[in-house]
Amino acid sequence: MLSYRELYERGMERIRAVDGVGLLDLGVETKSQNRLNREYLESLTLEMRLMDSAWASTTTSLFGHQIPHPIQCAAICDGRLLSRLSQYWEAPYLEEIAEGVAEAGTWLWVGHVSNQDLQRLMRAGGPVARIVKPFANEGWDETAGILAELKEAEQRGCVAVGMDIDVFYGEKTGDEPPYRYSLGPKTMDELRRFVEATRLPFVVKGVLSVHDALKCKEIGARGIVVSHHGGEAIDYAVPILRVLPHIRQAVGDMTILVDTGFRRGTDILKALALGANAVGVLSILLIAFAGHGRHGVTDMIRVLAEELRRNMSICGCKSIDGIDSSIVWLPYPDGRRGERP
Amino acid sequence: MLSYRELYERGMERIRAVDGVGLLDLGVETKSQNRLNREYLESLTLEMRLMDSAWASTTTSLFGHQIPHPIQCAAICDGRLLSRLSQYWEAPYLEEIAEGVAEAGTWLWVGHVSNQDLQRLMRAGGPVARIVKPFANEGWDETAGILAELKEAEQRGCVAVGMDIDVFYGEKTGDEPPYRYSLGPKTMDELRRFVEATRLPFVVKGVLSVHDALKCKEIGARGIVVSHHGGEAIDYAVPILRVLPHIRQAVGDMTILVDTGFRRGTDILKALALGANAVGVLSILLIAFAGHGRHGVTDMIRVLAEELRRNMSICGCKSIDGIDSSIVWLPYPDGRRGERP
Amino acid sequence: MLSYRELYERGMERIRAVDGVGLLDLGVETKSQNRLNREYLESLTLEMRLMDSAWASTTTSLFGHQIPHPIQCAAICDGRLLSRLSQYWEAPYLEEIAEGVAEAGTWLWVGHVSNQDLQRLMRAGGPVARIVKPFANEGWDETAGILAELKEAEQRGCVAVGMDIDVFYGEKTGDEPPYRYSLGPKTMDELRRFVEATRLPFVVKGVLSVHDALKCKEIGARGIVVSHHGGEAIDYAVPILRVLPHIRQAVGDMTILVDTGFRRGTDILKALALGANAVGVLSILLIAFAGHGRHGVTDMIRVLAEELRRNMSICGCKSIDGIDSSIVWLPYPDGRRGERP
Amino acid sequence: MLSYRELYERGMERIRAVDGVGLLDLGVETKSQNRLNREYLESLTLEMRLMDSAWASTTTSLFGHQIPHPIQCAAICDGRLLSRLSQYWEAPYLEEIAEGVAEAGTWLWVGHVSNQDLQRLMRAGGPVARIVKPFANEGWDETAGILAELKEAEQRGCVAVGMDIDVFYGEKTGDEPPYRYSLGPKTMDELRRFVEATRLPFVVKGVLSVHDALKCKEIGARGIVVSHHGGEAIDYAVPILRVLPHIRQAVGDMTILVDTGFRRGTDILKALALGANAVGVLSILLIAFAGHGRHGVTDMIRVLAEELRRNMSICGCKSIDGIDSSIVWLPYPDGRRGERP
Repeated sequence: MLSYRELYERGMERIRAVDGVGLLDLGVETKSQNRLNREYLESLTLEMRLMDSAWASTTTSLFGHQIPHPIQCAAICDGRLLSRLSQYWEAPYLEEIAEGVAEAGTWLWVGHVSNQDLQRLMRAGGPVARIVKPFANEGWDETAGILAELKEAEQRGCVAVGMDIDVFYGEKTGDEPPYRYSLGPKTMDELRRFVEATRLPFVVKGVLSVHDALKCKEIGARGIVVSHHGGEAIDYAVPILRVLPHIRQAVGDMTILVDTGFRRGTDILKALALGANAVGVLSILLIAFAGHGRHGVTDMIRVLAEELRRNMSICGCKSIDGIDSSIVWLPYPDGRRGERP
Repeated sequence: MLSYRELYERGMERIRAVDGVGLLDLGVETKSQNRLNREYLESLTLEMRLMDSAWASTTTSLFGHQIPHPIQCAAICDGRLLSRLSQYWEAPYLEEIAEGVAEAGTWLWVGHVSNQDLQRLMRAGGPVARIVKPFANEGWDETAGILAELKEAEQRGCVAVGMDIDVFYGEKTGDEPPYRYSLGPKTMDELRRFVEATRLPFVVKGVLSVHDALKCKEIGARGIVVSHHGGEAIDYAVPILRVLPHIRQAVGDMTILVDTGFRRGTDILKALALGANAVGVLSILLIAFAGHGRHGVTDMIRVLAEELRRNMSICGCKSIDGIDSSIVWLPYPDGRRGERP
Repeated sequence: MLSYRELYERGMERIRAVDGVGLLDLGVETKSQNRLNREYLESLTLEMRLMDSAWASTTTSLFGHQIPHPIQCAAICDGRLLSRLSQYWEAPYLEEIAEGVAEAGTWLWVGHVSNQDLQRLMRAGGPVARIVKPFANEGWDETAGILAELKEAEQRGCVAVGMDIDVFYGEKTGDEPPYRYSLGPKTMDELRRFVEATRLPFVVKGVLSVHDALKCKEIGARGIVVSHHGGEAIDYAVPILRVLPHIRQAVGDMTILVDTGFRRGTDILKALALGANAVGVLSILLIAFAGHGRHGVTDMIRVLAEELRRNMSICGCKSIDGIDSSIVWLPYPDGRRGERP
Repeated sequence: MLSYRELYERGMERIRAVDGVGLLDLGVETKSQNRLNREYLESLTLEMRLMDSAWASTTTSLFGHQIPHPIQCAAICDGRLLSRLSQYWEAPYLEEIAEGVAEAGTWLWVGHVSNQDLQRLMRAGGPVARIVKPFANEGWDETAGILAELKEAEQRGCVAVGMDIDVFYGEKTGDEPPYRYSLGPKTMDELRRFVEATRLPFVVKGVLSVHDALKCKEIGARGIVVSHHGGEAIDYAVPILRVLPHIRQAVGDMTILVDTGFRRGTDILKALALGANAVGVLSILLIAFAGHGRHGVTDMIRVLAEELRRNMSICGCKSIDGIDSSIVWLPYPDGRRGERP
């Protein structure tokens, strides 16, 4: 198994070679979000609880499925960085990533892909969850199409479905005009209809407030993803881990996933301590993939899982359920620890 | 319509060519104000409220006039940067800016200009508000002259008048001796007389404390502009958005405008959330003008209005009145959100 | 009158020429104090109070003497920077500085100088206050010598005397061995004896805690100087303006002077607002002296007094007594203003 | 006696020559701990209490032994930096360090060394405390071996023994795979057995939470070392001095040592004020050793002791027991001083 450094360095070398570093940090307008998000994440510190501790187990469950650890591949699509890197692999590279993720035994969340692509990605054999876009075209009712995508996902054996509401008003990169010709807001009734149309757990992706989390509960969603779409939703987004404990307190035991900006085992442990049930990573998998292909993806997930296990052990958390929120210290001078408020 | 980046980059290129970058950041003594002001502004983050949201309307009203959005051109005069840039345009460039602003359908606030200049600027056809200087010369009563300027503005059809009290003790740039030969403080009685002399809404510009805001209410002013004159009033000025919520709480529903340092749609949204009714921008319009002339001005206002509309939508604000102050998170570790205190 | 920039730039040019920049920022061990002190000072912001304001008067009084403004020359001695600069002036340069200070109409505090030097400095004609060292040599009672210095100061017409207690344990520069062969701690009884031996106001210099301020009151001192000796007392000293409001609250109306790190009119205004009666400046006078000799000293004091007057006016302070502590805003996220606690 | 700067500069020169600077700042994964730890330490400031003060005595006692000052050599072993520096000395250099420490009259804590090495180190004649590793190999009971090491230490005349629990889950450097083939967690019962097996004071090293401190008390440990193993335990470790006052409050008068990141007398004074009984330094001794051998070690300890004594005196602490926690000011804007909570 390659080390984090080996995976990271060779990947970054290739990404630099295709002038792709900027594509790892997309964002809207001033691109402040990812910086603010990391600054907050890095200001959180951890206390050790070694007395009466033991090697941790990272096994947990998500929507009734047992999983080896709560690290998952966040919603992927055929994005700019991947296409720029395509000179290194024969297509189809999304399948390569899917196989790397499956080999590591964890879930693959997929974003905007066609039904055929979905089918190909599922051939890797790992659990797949599908995020559907909030399609909207003036004068055209997209509901039927969305319902068909949800049905397709259910029939093909996906483990969950969902919709990313943070693109209701278009995806925007920097100062480019927002890409929104086919996206638009969905009403509470429309969303409720999508939730009710599937037997799969329905997950709302792109929640960044207590307001939205409670509305998701109201429409019957089984879970939410606290995320700001890797920075492409709104500039100056409140950091994920700053809002997370407030959301956890508000929604009780609803399933919460997070993504955006998580890169190490300690990052993931902080998220779990502050209220997440599982954590999606993506940039770091793309970096590993850039350098070492599908095996890089597998190795990176395993490295992160091992970092998580060791750090949980050091913090006295014997299991995922046993992670005590008070191991996290908020940045001074607040002085409060990470108790869920 | 050009993008923000296109407008910005070509403008900055020309400003650099005339060695004018420093003129975008004037300030007194150590010039700390604009840096402190931006740091505070950038430390504020936003939460998303996408559930049950819809495309926002930015339409609102100001002093009884309906306006398409609350973004206005802050008080302009024939300043150093404009004259240095004059090699690019045939005079008169103030009129060019006025036409760009009028084309965008918003208000032009004008500072120290002659009555003839005012007349020319009004020919652009857009709404104009006039800020009169607190003229003062020893041994000379300037009251009559000030009243004449107010009367002139009223007769020519201005939408509002006002006075910038933050130059009572002279305008100062860096370590240059303050320019104050013709300026001086006005008493409460003098100010009340100006307010009462016009049927137009009278606005006091350069308010940076609850103390002053309450005194403005006391003299019957219809509105205030929370501002520190682009940095030229006092060094180490308290940041605009730090004091704004305190002022809003103190004055109730009095009209509050803000300016100084606002450059993007998110900046404007934060100001509106924390208590402003409208936001003046100027530096960014001058940059757009430097690169693309009057059409740059129009485009920049439209870009900002579109950014505001998209960001309001993402934050669940369907209208200007519907902007909820609690979408703004204050910098950690305060932990409080932007509730008006 | 030269401007601040002119005074500063030519002075720094000469100081650089004699490789003396480091001597402007002396300190103990890691030399953290001056940096921490400035960071805190610069984090304080000011609100404007222009309504109902007027040009301020800076006239005030100190120990019963009327003074044109509360800016004074902090305790000076024949230090390293001055001797390194001596190539520019014919000696005796301390007298030159004394004349520059006298010309500006303010007080000169003198540190470790001989009785003859004191006499020469007083010939400049301005008010002089003398700080005596806590001399101590093993097996030798220095009391008589100290009493003689106090008597001499009184007879020669000094306006105040005092002792700098922050050198009880030696002066230390960086990692050099502390210079302490002739200094040592004085007991409460010894200090009380010094206070009682003179009819002049006795001032304890080098107070940086409520603890010490109260003890100074107990021995009958008329005033204190909140200071950490320009950084040469203790590394990581608490910033002057952070501790000042606590001291002011504890000692009631005792006279408080401050020094260390004050360079502009706004710095001085902040100190006055947070509890000081007068402010000593030194580095900036040495810089002005380096560039322009005694006239530089005079001009710099006048520039600072004028900055103070303008900034007091803008903040609505009509007189030194009328400076309202709440014009100062503490760094966020504290949120509290500068009310004396 | 050489000065701190002389000791430091020549040492660093040699460490640079063997490309060893990075070895002074080991850490796990992102290596954030030492940076965060120093940032917090440096944000603490000190108030002076000179009135009624006197030259301090640094004499104190530890586990019933009188010691000249509370500065000790933190647990040392034959680490990477030492072996890389070995070109400068004839082996055995650990003995050289032991002699330098003994000459300075303070304790040497030793980490992972053989019984023979322990014997050699004790020949230097100074007090030695031994930290035993939590050995663990699958299918093998290491208890007997650990008990034998404890017995050996007792018989040879060590002043204390202990175990470093922060390596339960392996030592890790950067992204290297954790070195853990022979280490593993010990149960409360096992630890209690070690405590009870020796008449020497038993100290648990690597405590970084109130949780662990209370468990140490529960098993009968006589002392704890608040430490994160120089950064090699967990990434983003909470800073030593942030958690220390909480631990002090929880454990009452239990003996607390600290190490990791202390380099100057002021650092040590802050630790003592916030709850430590003694402070271990290591990196700075290795630097002194690199430059000046065993005499460098002796001199550095003496320099630190002298810095401590002078700074205690300035802060009005006449003895180690007399150090008042409120001399430490926490970073603004918390506003609270270092009272043990």
